[in-house]
Amino acid sequence: MTRRLTVLAGPTAVGKGTVAAWVREHHPEVWLSVSATTRPPRPGEQDGVHYHFVSGDQFADMVRRGEMLEWAVVHGRASYGTPRAAVEQALDQGLMPLLEIDLQGARQVRASMPEAYFVFLAPPSWDELVHRLEGRGTESAEERAVRLETAKVEMAAQEEFDAVVVNDDIRRAAEELVSLMGSH
Amino acid sequence: MTRRLTVLAGPTAVGKGTVAAWVREHHPEVWLSVSATTRPPRPGEQDGVHYHFVSGDQFADMVRRGEMLEWAVVHGRASYGTPRAAVEQALDQGLMPLLEIDLQGARQVRASMPEAYFVFLAPPSWDELVHRLEGRGTESAEERAVRLETAKVEMAAQEEFDAVVVNDDIRRAAEELVSLMGSH
Repeated sequence: MTRRLTVLAGPTAVGKGTVAAWVREHHPEVWLSVSATTRPPRPGEQDGVHYHFVSGDQFADMVRRGEMLEWAVVHGRASYGTPRAAVEQALDQGLMPLLEIDLQGARQVRASMPEAYFVFLAPPSWDELVHRLEGRGTESAEERAVRLETAKVEMAAQEEFDAVVVNDDIRRAAEELVSLMGSH
Repeated sequence: MTRRLTVLAGPTAVGKGTVAAWVREHHPEVWLSVSATTRPPRPGEQDGVHYHFVSGDQFADMVRRGEMLEWAVVHGRASYGTPRAAVEQALDQGLMPLLEIDLQGARQVRASMPEAYFVFLAPPSWDELVHRLEGRGTESAEERAVRLETAKVEMAAQEEFDAVVVNDDIRRAAEELVSLMGSH
């Protein structure tokens, strides 16, 4: 078995962050990738734990040197990226690196590290995803309709992935993910 | 000479759209890619000219069938993408296809069509880019500072490209672009 980076992605509101947090808490053999960002820390956020907080110049240097597995400018404001070196170090140390990321980021990683293993986190059903999206709250009917159209597109992206894990239960989905990581 | 898709990208406010529009007007041998989108048309926009306006279901089907060279959900709302078939048809017809796109889209195209030719449109100088960004208007000092940090990161991306064209003059830059398209 050769260790590979595992990339976990999926539609909005499917619970990627919750599944990744469960893995972090219960599987010390899994190393969770920490993103670099140019945005300032929020209260309670620790450098190196929640993000690597860097300046625009530092981030630009990393991009220039090809040190980002993927990166994006979000809403024309802060930049976010995944430093390649830390992932490779985790692989060298025999850890299982896991990167939780959005769909566009996942497709960039496919370009820069095609040997990675791509897992799509899916909702138990379309109705359940609709329920979770609607549970977000105070939007107008039009905004909800737009969000559902977006979710349809995001669900279609699962064809691009190596495996699909259904998030019917956080613990079960997380264990299936870790099991897949150990067996591919 | 083998015809290839040319991808034109660059930092915010560098003038990609203006250069592409000049090419469209003066070079009928260049075929400009038309994006598909799920957002509704705005007044004056024509289907098939400015965008292909499609439903969420249609867009999702294209994603599912792998028919998008790249796609993104923008601000969690509308989806935008580049249909592969039209680009390949243009290539078959001996036209020179040009895709004007943002930096993230360009990196996705590199994953799905690595044989494409990637051109970075650069400002004549850093000061000139700052001037153009500031010319956008009514932002606070903090918003301007964020925009400049973003521009630094975007400028660093030029290392990823096959060629750099400096947008010192729209006509000159457009002609250099077309000349590059014809010679690679």
